[in-house]
Amino acid sequence: MEQYFVKEIINSDKFTIDEAETFKHIAKVMRHKTGDIVYLVDPSEKLYAATIDEIDSENNNILTSIELVNRPSTEMPVDVTVACSLSKKDKIEWITQKSTELGAKTIIFFDSKYSIMKWKTNVVEKKLARLQEIAKNAAQQSKRRIIPEVIYVNKLADLLKYQAEANLVAYEESAKQGEISRLGQTLNQSPKSVLCAFGPEGGFAPDEIDFLNQNDFVSVGLGPRIMRAETAPMYFLSVLSYKYELTVK
Amino acid sequence: MEQYFVKEIINSDKFTIDEAETFKHIAKVMRHKTGDIVYLVDPSEKLYAATIDEIDSENNNILTSIELVNRPSTEMPVDVTVACSLSKKDKIEWITQKSTELGAKTIIFFDSKYSIMKWKTNVVEKKLARLQEIAKNAAQQSKRRIIPEVIYVNKLADLLKYQAEANLVAYEESAKQGEISRLGQTLNQSPKSVLCAFGPEGGFAPDEIDFLNQNDFVSVGLGPRIMRAETAPMYFLSVLSYKYELTVK
Repeated sequence: MEQYFVKEIINSDKFTIDEAETFKHIAKVMRHKTGDIVYLVDPSEKLYAATIDEIDSENNNILTSIELVNRPSTEMPVDVTVACSLSKKDKIEWITQKSTELGAKTIIFFDSKYSIMKWKTNVVEKKLARLQEIAKNAAQQSKRRIIPEVIYVNKLADLLKYQAEANLVAYEESAKQGEISRLGQTLNQSPKSVLCAFGPEGGFAPDEIDFLNQNDFVSVGLGPRIMRAETAPMYFLSVLSYKYELTVK
Repeated sequence: MEQYFVKEIINSDKFTIDEAETFKHIAKVMRHKTGDIVYLVDPSEKLYAATIDEIDSENNNILTSIELVNRPSTEMPVDVTVACSLSKKDKIEWITQKSTELGAKTIIFFDSKYSIMKWKTNVVEKKLARLQEIAKNAAQQSKRRIIPEVIYVNKLADLLKYQAEANLVAYEESAKQGEISRLGQTLNQSPKSVLCAFGPEGGFAPDEIDFLNQNDFVSVGLGPRIMRAETAPMYFLSVLSYKYELTVK
């Protein structure tokens, strides 16, 4: 059964779904009828089963009866931010979708020296809106309780605003030098929040790595194979899920 | 510096690169000149630095001087097979590329009840050749020592031929029931080889799960979020790399 995010807190046993896109998806795409059940997640991250009482096609809204569903949250026990160097449209859309499926809370795109793309100021808003839409759809599909926030910063220094308790930078040179233990060491400390920065296809410039290291970003290797820029964040998120959601205490 | 697989064992300090595609890539695409160095991996999984002595454009081959490079292997210490239900062309190409980057040794595609695709017998060879080419390119790019083998089986039962020491099936219902420990338990036993089967978007049919379970495939949950069919194998491979390549003993 599909899940939709709603923007208002659900605080009664009746709820009216009135967002145009959600209405369209339920009534037109999925062709739900009275009596069908859809799942709703509200801003308090609670999950509700909503039985459709009436599809009002004149006012484009759906009246439902609400029941709280007591199911464990699907959110990671640690707040994870992936910060990825700007790349081509299809790659950043893909990173947004997959990072959402894999549990990221925040997805940052940033300009770096060897980025092959740069966003002009006048397109940032539109591009972020599109990525935010992709994140919303992926979050609904993967049954998340929140929609990850997608952020753009036009210089590496602005990443510091979003620093977490543990800050990492995936660094190919670390991997080449056989660095294999820092990621595990960091995760073993069970930080409440983790941010990892990922460079572009051409890697970070040495002074970018220096800047990040000086600002408490620990360089970590992610294994001996060279991963494409979009693959490394997936590796990282999968490892965090395994470590914090699947590993027997 | 880029890496190429060669089909013959390198057993002298001179080597002639004569595969058409490799010749073209080195001489035409990358426009290498005499004195440039490229890396070669031979079927014994050894890595060599090859200094270009002559680019012979008449005979389409490249004469090189060879030096063994003593660098640790980039192969996982465990043989990993991902077996994925057949899906659309772009998805299986994507799975092949990413599974190669993430270290799979064997990539199997199989027909299952809820697969949205089926390959006709007369296209199998061509499709596998295309996927094998993608695996080769990804293996070169990610600096692997082997090219993963891509295999197609047209029924689930034929998967049994490829069973490993530990056999798993990623099962959404296991995840829903809060199963979080079997993957870790299996990996803690340090099997020499692991195979994990992944169902299609619509999941495995219950009798398919029964069949796999009866044949020693252990159902494992991969965390609380619903992943798309192509994302789950990436999660699995990332976890194995972390567990066997990055975790401090």
